Amino acid sequence: MAILVVGSVAFDSLETPSGKRERVLGGAATHFALAASFFTKVRVVGVVGEDFLPEHEAVLTSKGIDTTGIEHVAGKSFHWTGSYVKDLNSAETLATDLNVFAEFQPKIPASYLDSEYLFLANIDPVLQLKVRQEMANAKLVAGDTMNYWIAAHRENLLKVLDELDVLLINDGEAKMLSGVDNGLRAAEGVIALGPKAVVVKHGEYGATMYGGGQAFRAPARPLGEVVDPTGAGDSFAGGFYGYIASQGTLTPETFRTAMFYGSVMGSLACERFGTERLQVTTREEIEERFQHLKTISHL
Amino acid sequence: MAILVVGSVAFDSLETPSGKRERVLGGAATHFALAASFFTKVRVVGVVGEDFLPEHEAVLTSKGIDTTGIEHVAGKSFHWTGSYVKDLNSAETLATDLNVFAEFQPKIPASYLDSEYLFLANIDPVLQLKVRQEMANAKLVAGDTMNYWIAAHRENLLKVLDELDVLLINDGEAKMLSGVDNGLRAAEGVIALGPKAVVVKHGEYGATMYGGGQAFRAPARPLGEVVDPTGAGDSFAGGFYGYIASQGTLTPETFRTAMFYGSVMGSLACERFGTERLQVTTREEIEERFQHLKTISHL
Repeated sequence: MAILVVGSVAFDSLETPSGKRERVLGGAATHFALAASFFTKVRVVGVVGEDFLPEHEAVLTSKGIDTTGIEHVAGKSFHWTGSYVKDLNSAETLATDLNVFAEFQPKIPASYLDSEYLFLANIDPVLQLKVRQEMANAKLVAGDTMNYWIAAHRENLLKVLDELDVLLINDGEAKMLSGVDNGLRAAEGVIALGPKAVVVKHGEYGATMYGGGQAFRAPARPLGEVVDPTGAGDSFAGGFYGYIASQGTLTPETFRTAMFYGSVMGSLACERFGTERLQVTTREEIEERFQHLKTISHL
Repeated sequence: MAILVVGSVAFDSLETPSGKRERVLGGAATHFALAASFFTKVRVVGVVGEDFLPEHEAVLTSKGIDTTGIEHVAGKSFHWTGSYVKDLNSAETLATDLNVFAEFQPKIPASYLDSEYLFLANIDPVLQLKVRQEMANAKLVAGDTMNYWIAAHRENLLKVLDELDVLLINDGEAKMLSGVDNGLRAAEGVIALGPKAVVVKHGEYGATMYGGGQAFRAPARPLGEVVDPTGAGDSFAGGFYGYIASQGTLTPETFRTAMFYGSVMGSLACERFGTERLQVTTREEIEERFQHLKTISHL
């Protein structure tokens, strides 16, 4: 079953304790799409500038990702400059050059309209809502957001939350959104705002899914080196949602298994800069890591 | 199989976001012994003052805990005053009155000498080593420590680590002890210092056991309110080690199951002040929580 993802396609300049990279392919929709592409058909809606070359598009299309919905316009692509040198768990933004992304108006190709699974990556909630309304027949709607939208665009964000089946956020965002410091109560507070379920990511400690009065925890793979955490959350979301879309049945077991695949894809993403690791990942590696996660967590 | 635990038996004055308590029964050996008592025979070595009344001893003896090795001396018991009002994850010490604990010299009753399982709770590593040497025939030796001993008594602590089968510490202590910031590398660094295995506790995110080149992660129960985290780590250790001692066989499966029982006992300890929750816990509740942990973590 096809996923439509709307979000940023960008270039990132990154510095981490492991090194530096200038203008590597990035953006939430890119990381999500690459991770999800191992499981199901993915269609991307985004915007790029003249610096987005055929070689960049090929990173996506070589994985079977449909890029018909990536609009090419005059100007430069979104460019984010960030550092994790002080703290690997928290990105320090050094520069945000929105460029062509500043005027982004998502345009959904006709060939995308039958997508049953919709993922609203981290963009202005006004745009998330617009896409959601245009995709009114989607069978499942999931999304992401970040502290900026929670703090400064809360009213708009609440309209999106009301439309979501699943919201994926991290611990800090769940606490900020709910105004509650306790992890469980924060998740309940977020669900009270609209989404049927929330997946709260805990970085190196894994993630917890809350919904229907139940919790489910997936461990993270212990990593000896986090080369670059950029896109790990988007890759988690791609693995999680990609697996769900590949199953067709929305059972609790599907969602629980999806948590493990999310964790697998998040761990892979951290092992090299940008999308480098997902570009060389094989389906066999994913299965190996899935089994390993069971080994390190199941009695 | 009997466990001998040596450590503090104390009174705690506590303030948390949920309220205050003055001079409630506490101490690492107390929390550990109560938690372990649900699984196996426990013998305590410690020291108390004249303020430790029969009613306090009865909290232990009513659970079948052997208190022969709790020495009663003139003066006051160890008294710790702490606050979690600013941060539930980090105790702020307001006062440490060592009192009779300042001169503590562990004396092991003859009736304890056949204990096969030794637990060295968080005390001066010089005393931990002394007890370990007196219990040379112990089948398994586990222990705890804290930032104070890591920072100021490293040489003494290293001699203890060399004697341990299992060290239980938290994330911050593992990083401090190894000098490494990455969780997996920190655990490997700790194991290189002596212990065959290390259990690293992650608070609300559970715990990870490392050893023999393997990792195993146990989830924490999501708690809607942490009333008082004092003794949660000691209670985890008590559940973990108590289960191991109850089994007799030191298989990987025993250790993995023990991680889940540790998590269960840690979660219980947080639900009321001091030892209040473990005093009213039933074995049935423990089994229910054990099954619940499997439900929220197993595919």
